[in-house]
Parts: sequence; C-alpha cells; structure tokens
Amino acid sequence: MIQLTDFLQTRKQRIEEAMPVYIEKLQAPETLKKAMLYSLEAGGKRLRPILVLAVLHTYKQAEDAGIATACAIEMIHTYSLIHDDLPCMDDDDLRRGKPTNHKVFGEAMAVLAGDGLLTQSFSLIVNDPFSSSEKKLRIISELVLSAGAEGMVGGQVADMEGESKNLTLLELQYIHENKTAKLLSFSIISGAILAGAPEEDIEKLRKYAYHLGIAFQIQDDILDIEGSQEIIGKPIGSDTTNEKTTYPSLLTIQGAKEKLSDHIEQAKEFVDSLSVPAELLIQMCDLIAKRDH
Amino acid sequence: MIQLTDFLQTRKQRIEEAMPVYIEKLQAPETLKKAMLYSLEAGGKRLRPILVLAVLHTYKQAEDAGIATACAIEMIHTYSLIHDDLPCMDDDDLRRGKPTNHKVFGEAMAVLAGDGLLTQSFSLIVNDPFSSSEKKLRIISELVLSAGAEGMVGGQVADMEGESKNLTLLELQYIHENKTAKLLSFSIISGAILAGAPEEDIEKLRKYAYHLGIAFQIQDDILDIEGSQEIIGKPIGSDTTNEKTTYPSLLTIQGAKEKLSDHIEQAKEFVDSLSVPAELLIQMCDLIAKRDH
Repeated sequence: MIQLTDFLQTRKQRIEEAMPVYIEKLQAPETLKKAMLYSLEAGGKRLRPILVLAVLHTYKQAEDAGIATACAIEMIHTYSLIHDDLPCMDDDDLRRGKPTNHKVFGEAMAVLAGDGLLTQSFSLIVNDPFSSSEKKLRIISELVLSAGAEGMVGGQVADMEGESKNLTLLELQYIHENKTAKLLSFSIISGAILAGAPEEDIEKLRKYAYHLGIAFQIQDDILDIEGSQEIIGKPIGSDTTNEKTTYPSLLTIQGAKEKLSDHIEQAKEFVDSLSVPAELLIQMCDLIAKRDH
Repeated sequence: MIQLTDFLQTRKQRIEEAMPVYIEKLQAPETLKKAMLYSLEAGGKRLRPILVLAVLHTYKQAEDAGIATACAIEMIHTYSLIHDDLPCMDDDDLRRGKPTNHKVFGEAMAVLAGDGLLTQSFSLIVNDPFSSSEKKLRIISELVLSAGAEGMVGGQVADMEGESKNLTLLELQYIHENKTAKLLSFSIISGAILAGAPEEDIEKLRKYAYHLGIAFQIQDDILDIEGSQEIIGKPIGSDTTNEKTTYPSLLTIQGAKEKLSDHIEQAKEFVDSLSVPAELLIQMCDLIAKRDH
C-alpha cells in the first residue's frame, strides 16, 4: 500500500517538472513569462494538483491523464495568491518566505501575470492530449464554478467585506467554502471525471472535498495562533492583529479543534462509502488535520 | 441589403440586453455582481460582440448561435479595461465619460471584478446551448490564444515596457497586434467557427481581422490627436503628453493615414475573396477607417 507521504513527495516533483514547460513554450514577452514562472516556482505543498493524481491513483488510472488539469489548478491557485498579495488587497510582502510577485516585478506586472496564469489554465485543459471532449467541457464548467464569481472570486470578495466585522459562523463558512474549499473540491472532482469514476462516487467525493476544504481552513486559522513562523514561511498572529473573525475567535481554540475533527470524520465517512478503496484520500484527511504548514 | 449602421444599432441593443442576464443569475456577493455589471453596462460601441453576429449573418446562420460567445468577448474586453485603468497600470479616472471601476468600487474590488468577468466568459462558451462540443473547444482554444499571454495580456506587457521608449514600427505593430487586433480577430474567427464557415474562409477572415485590428488601432492613435474629447469621452492628447510611440509619431499624421488606408484595402481584399458575399464586413472596414470615437 502506498504511503501518502511518499505519494506527495514524488508527485510534487512531477508537477514541478511539468508546470514550467507550459509557460516556457509561450510566445510572450520574457518579463511576463518570468513573472508567471516566479510565482509558479515559489514552492508550496502542491496539494491541489496532487489531489488530482491521488484520485486517478485511487481509481487505478494512469496519472498522466491528470497532469494537465493538475497544472491548470496550480496556475489558478497561484494567480489567486498573486492578486491576493497585491497592495490593494492583503498587501503582503512575503509568500512562502520569498518576496511576493509585485515586490519583485511591480504591481502592474503582478496583475498581468495573474491574468495570464488564469487565462492559460484553460488552455491546458482544452489541449490535454489524454482527455475527451466531453470530459474537457465538464471540467471547464466545474472550474468556472469553483474559481469564478460563484466560487473563489466570490469568496475573496466576501472575505474582504467581512474584514474587521464580527461574522457569524455561517458567514465564515460561506467565505471558506468559496475562497478555499471549492478549488480543493475541484481538484478532487476533476480527478474523478478524468478517472471515469461512477456518478455516485463523484457526488460523494464532492462532499468529501467540501469537508476536507473546511478542515483545511480551520487548521489554517489554528496555525495562525499555534504555528511556527519559520515552518509556515510567513508571520503568524496576523488574524488577531487584523481582528479577523476566525474559527478560534468564534469557537475558542478548543472548539475550533473539535470542529476540525468533525469535518475530518465526515470527510472520511464519504470516502469510505466509495465504490473503490481510497486509502490515499483517507490518509489525506489525517495529513490536513495534523499539518504544521 | 442590410446597412451596417442599422445592424450595429439593433445588435448593440441585443447584446446589451443579453449580457446582464449572465451576471444577475450568479450566486455571488451583490457588490461583486454590481461591480461586474457597472463596467459591462458602461456603454461602448460593442464592436467585438457585434462582429460575431455579423459573421453569422454573412453566412446566413441564425445570430442566436453567436450571443453567448459575443457576450463572452465583451466580458473579456471589459475585464481588460478594468485592469488597464487601475492606478498601477494606466491610472485612468474616466472611461467612456464615467468614473472607472476602481474609482467607484475601490481597487481590490476592481481587480476581482476583472478576474470574475474573465473567468465567467469561459462559462458562457461552455454552456452555449446552440454550439457543439467540437466548436466550443475550438473557440476556447482560440480565446486563450487571443486573450492570454500569447495575445492581449502579452500585448499589454509589451505596451507597458515600451512606454517612454522609442519603439520601432515592428515593435509598435507587435503591441497592437497582440493588445488589440487579436481579440477583434477572435470575434470574427469565433463567428466563423460557429457559422460552420469553410476552413479556407476562416484563414482569410483571420487575415481580414488582423488588418482591421491594426487599422482600428491606427485610427485610435489619430483620434488621440485629431479627435474630439466630447465625442470620445476621455481626454485627448494623452499619447503626446506621455511621450508614447504611436503611428503618427513614427510616420507623421499623413503617413499614419496612408498606413490606415493600406490596411483597410488589404482587409477588403481578403474579405472579397470569401466563398460568400460579405457586405457587412466590407462596410465594417469603412466604418473603422472613418470612426470618430
């Protein structure tokens, strides 16, 4: 049986080898390509793209079929980080311990590098040599729902509008479902579509992914209190300083940890009821609950 | 025979009725939807979306088949204007005589409204009830080439990098081909794909569109010198103030006008050699050469 830690390590490398190829071959101004590559290559866990491969692995399908979609997701995630870090948004100077995109390339280029990554991600899916027309269109449709106004972009707006406000748990949940969970969920669903998983499994995986995504965010909030700046690569305690509503601020740190456990348990239940054993996806739950960065 | 001026007027209305529907139905924060709608509804000639319908009309196909793609193009064009107007880019306060998006909604919301419009445009194409899977995928592939790093985004970067530099005619051509001509070209090509035009016609239309797009930009440069601020809706003379390289600055105003004529003539030649008569597309050449805003 494959261990998730091995899977993560080997597939991270595979994703990191594949991604730059899509950018380097572009006929585009060199500075733009450099700015796009800079943030794509800034590291990170590559959790979202690896989830695509993990689902293909679960259904015993060749992981090659997931590379293009996996890289597309990492491009979307990266574009969102570049735009979130802008002075007019979160105004962050550091990301994963390195200067943010606009600190290196300037704000205008950072906006355009984000726009370029977002647009290009659709090209990877459309030109995926391993996918069928039907799968491509379904994946693009899911991607827009996850990444656009009805997903990540909408979540970011709600997050901005909720700053320094006292949010209810429902409002906080809306933000995280849209800002974080939907793109994680897209990784899993696109993997399932590519794998040709049964429709019932796809719906169970959607629920698994929802709980996993919320758990991911709760752990993020907990790390901002209990984490180590050196391991995370960015200052901790910023939520408290910014008077942000978080799971710990609403539920106490103990309550947040219980909520995290609940979501992890529910995620496991959905994945346990799939038509195939899904050891990697179960291990993913524990990894997210216990991650330190 | 239909007159282009009538066609423009009636189809502009049709596009302006169709566009808001795609935004209003989104399950997204109200402010985001307002910001997206604000710029979509800020007017403009709607030339790009109308070109899709004009090509369908040319091939005697129902224009309904072009509405979704036409609206998608206008969303892409609008997102690019919102991001171009940002303080870190062109820092414009007015667009079509109205305050720019970030002046009304703030910079962060303007970035996100642009991101939302760009992402949503793909949804319109994927969910187009009149299109086939094959056409949708081909159109998305063309859209990425026109709007992304290899097209409009790349052109915008080259434009930024060329500011206050003395550009050669070739460099200026590269900027305008990418920043302006490719999206105009996409309108025409997507219309041709939707119409089921013969492949040879599609390639001729690509060349027609290229010359039309460059002509459009040359006329833009001329209008910045000879135009009327009241008609254009923004201050004129800004290119000279910003020491921008333009067609008139490289070729003199007379030379620019001759270049404009050349491109218009070449556009007409390509469109004259199509397998169908294309009266609207010929009239479009004259309209662009003589436009005053």
